Amino acid sequence: MSNFSHWNEEGRPKMVDISQKDVTTRTAIAQSTISFSNELYEAIQNGLIKKGDPLQVAQIAGIMGAKKTADIIPMCHPIMLQGVDFTFNYQQQAAGYDLIIQATVKCSGKTGVEMEALTAASIAALTFYDMCKAVDKTMVIKETFLVQKTGGKSGDFFHEK
Amino acid sequence: MSNFSHWNEEGRPKMVDISQKDVTTRTAIAQSTISFSNELYEAIQNGLIKKGDPLQVAQIAGIMGAKKTADIIPMCHPIMLQGVDFTFNYQQQAAGYDLIIQATVKCSGKTGVEMEALTAASIAALTFYDMCKAVDKTMVIKETFLVQKTGGKSGDFFHEK
Amino acid sequence: MSNFSHWNEEGRPKMVDISQKDVTTRTAIAQSTISFSNELYEAIQNGLIKKGDPLQVAQIAGIMGAKKTADIIPMCHPIMLQGVDFTFNYQQQAAGYDLIIQATVKCSGKTGVEMEALTAASIAALTFYDMCKAVDKTMVIKETFLVQKTGGKSGDFFHEK
Amino acid sequence: MSNFSHWNEEGRPKMVDISQKDVTTRTAIAQSTISFSNELYEAIQNGLIKKGDPLQVAQIAGIMGAKKTADIIPMCHPIMLQGVDFTFNYQQQAAGYDLIIQATVKCSGKTGVEMEALTAASIAALTFYDMCKAVDKTMVIKETFLVQKTGGKSGDFFHEK
Amino acid sequence: MSNFSHWNEEGRPKMVDISQKDVTTRTAIAQSTISFSNELYEAIQNGLIKKGDPLQVAQIAGIMGAKKTADIIPMCHPIMLQGVDFTFNYQQQAAGYDLIIQATVKCSGKTGVEMEALTAASIAALTFYDMCKAVDKTMVIKETFLVQKTGGKSGDFFHEK
Amino acid sequence: MSNFSHWNEEGRPKMVDISQKDVTTRTAIAQSTISFSNELYEAIQNGLIKKGDPLQVAQIAGIMGAKKTADIIPMCHPIMLQGVDFTFNYQQQAAGYDLIIQATVKCSGKTGVEMEALTAASIAALTFYDMCKAVDKTMVIKETFLVQKTGGKSGDFFHEK
Repeated sequence: MSNFSHWNEEGRPKMVDISQKDVTTRTAIAQSTISFSNELYEAIQNGLIKKGDPLQVAQIAGIMGAKKTADIIPMCHPIMLQGVDFTFNYQQQAAGYDLIIQATVKCSGKTGVEMEALTAASIAALTFYDMCKAVDKTMVIKETFLVQKTGGKSGDFFHEK
Repeated sequence: MSNFSHWNEEGRPKMVDISQKDVTTRTAIAQSTISFSNELYEAIQNGLIKKGDPLQVAQIAGIMGAKKTADIIPMCHPIMLQGVDFTFNYQQQAAGYDLIIQATVKCSGKTGVEMEALTAASIAALTFYDMCKAVDKTMVIKETFLVQKTGGKSGDFFHEK
Repeated sequence: MSNFSHWNEEGRPKMVDISQKDVTTRTAIAQSTISFSNELYEAIQNGLIKKGDPLQVAQIAGIMGAKKTADIIPMCHPIMLQGVDFTFNYQQQAAGYDLIIQATVKCSGKTGVEMEALTAASIAALTFYDMCKAVDKTMVIKETFLVQKTGGKSGDFFHEK
Repeated sequence: MSNFSHWNEEGRPKMVDISQKDVTTRTAIAQSTISFSNELYEAIQNGLIKKGDPLQVAQIAGIMGAKKTADIIPMCHPIMLQGVDFTFNYQQQAAGYDLIIQATVKCSGKTGVEMEALTAASIAALTFYDMCKAVDKTMVIKETFLVQKTGGKSGDFFHEK
Repeated sequence: MSNFSHWNEEGRPKMVDISQKDVTTRTAIAQSTISFSNELYEAIQNGLIKKGDPLQVAQIAGIMGAKKTADIIPMCHPIMLQGVDFTFNYQQQAAGYDLIIQATVKCSGKTGVEMEALTAASIAALTFYDMCKAVDKTMVIKETFLVQKTGGKSGDFFHEK
Repeated sequence: MSNFSHWNEEGRPKMVDISQKDVTTRTAIAQSTISFSNELYEAIQNGLIKKGDPLQVAQIAGIMGAKKTADIIPMCHPIMLQGVDFTFNYQQQAAGYDLIIQATVKCSGKTGVEMEALTAASIAALTFYDMCKAVDKTMVIKETFLVQKTGGKSGDFFHEK
């Protein structure tokens, strides 16, 4: 089945041959959300963490994680990333808060950076969890998905809500 | 605020001193879920992937990812893992399917393996996504959370539904 | 001695300057063979391993290993691999079986991928060994060599039997 | 089939649970051999490489490779190595020379270091190949095998010639 | 010469056998200093970097770097670190400022953590340099040394000024 | 403040977007110095280390370290290095000796290799320290700085003494 481009004729996974693909500018944005208690939100906002901020550590871990994608996801190609950035937004919910994490990744290459953006967002969420788990053991990482991608032969993609 | 054990007195993150903690047997189970289309489910089940199986790659990536946790999550301690395994269960939904991924991690040490289990489950989900994204671009990784942990001073924990 | 391009004038190893070399499409195929007992062969073939297959793990480890080459072999240049795949063939011998492992690696760059192919084949063989060593402690990894390479100034190379 | 301890009940690979195994002193010796031309041997011996020596780079790469074993071989447990060393011996053959590489690895732990020794020997051989391939493209890495291991429940093992 | 414990009888480097050494609590403190311009100091202090702080990134990189020591320094043993923290102090000089970086590392093991502390301090200094080099290209990393170590057979050590 | 190109609008660090920068040939030379006792110098020079040489290990570690820069320094871009080499010079001082280490790094890319050269020089110095610390515990790593860089929009830079 030709759509499953990751599998070779023997049914085993391969790193797909991209040597014939064009070099284009490619971007991807991925989002992950983590939900937690009011207690944790207030601890962060009220300055009980003096100069610190879990988002600092999450962003740094996410950027370093984007660079490790080809080492973590077995069939990913190594890619020379040209830019990685994050936005973080807190949203009050009926019970507790959500933190919306978006990772934006850019490169110029023969394959897209969707997995790099998804990996960056996931690692940022996991790092936020690690930094705060002493206060709130009930955190849940919720939807993690590709928001959009541009560049490449398959065209642009925008997640439909 | 003493609960934020990851922050030092200057408000910067530190690797917490665990030298006085006891060595106990510790386990953690984490779960992640990925939802996808009927088309993708049928392609997998109908043997269109001859000998292959995205779950094989996901499990291997998840186990290797568990071993990389201290390299990925900035404040995690290096841990000598003593066992990692996975279960995968497909569940039919109103539209499409869910794949329930559970990672179980075991060690004997001075700190728990929650982050190792969460990282393993997340990387398995990301890898499944990578293996199948040529067929289904609308996959979403849903709830990722700690199901349970045992061992250590803070006692056992079980996620309440 | 100019042929030893890895050594600088002080006799210490260097990463050779390839900035003046041309970017060309380069491929390399390397082969490794592992020999083992009839008992192990039959266990694999008779489905005593239900859905599993040591070749799956070997192939995934080999592909991930190809990406680690510049981290493992001290003087290798980092290379953006564009494709990696494997073939595996069992051959019955007078006593036991041989598994012939071939790794094919492709890139477009200023230096060849011989070491990436050799490293991929070696790691696949080592992984097969690890997966099966509980059954057969007498396995031997036999000839590992470069089968062919194409591209680059030094021209194509084909191993003569 | 209980002997295949790397596979779980679903037929997928797992990192075996070693939490109930005893901590013992464990050693392993692995051997790899690389054969090459008289021309290459003479270049090395006649001091055409002033202060340098491919064996230096091979030994360092092999020691660093031993430490990477759990990152390279998917189901290997992380292990705190307590000592790694090498011996190298040249042997004249009918045509050309053989270099016999032996890696000795020691640890105190719950699982053996066979894979660490085999990985160390293989990476040393691959590194020797890389350092010298500009002079001799026909090198072949020959038998790579476990010479002996001591410690652990399964007892000592000595390779029979 | 027995004092050069890193070299084997052939004159090649080895990972020293520490299997006979005692497990003791070990600590090490290392210091590095980086000097830079008044302009850079003022930019940092006057809040021109809104919520950010080069010290945050330096500390996180230093902690992650401590965990990579055995991967970076060829003959270092892998060590299970049990705690890493930093202090940073700015000191006005005749021309410009010095930033004094101290890394404290703790473990319980068979070998010391001097190299982990020195590596952590060096990587923190390099990271500060990277974060600020767009403003000041003339930064110099000055004395990097072991301030003290405790634990182990060779006894405690305190750097004499 | 636009000069702090590593910080995004929220004050958190980002990997700067270099997609619009030109590909040029870039070089950087960095220097580090380590000072040590006469006793250590004589032990090295008098052949008490038979075939070995701390500079061999330092150079290999430095080259491998240059390749790890983007993994060590959080905001560094991955770069395809095209050449790395070292020079080492001993200088007698009033008390003891200095070893002057210079690392030269070359690439063709969209961003410079200053951090790669500085990281290579620092890791070479740390490795020399590790190899010799059994003989001399009072070694100090002294000035580490960028000697020169060429290529890129910001122009060439030469360190003024």
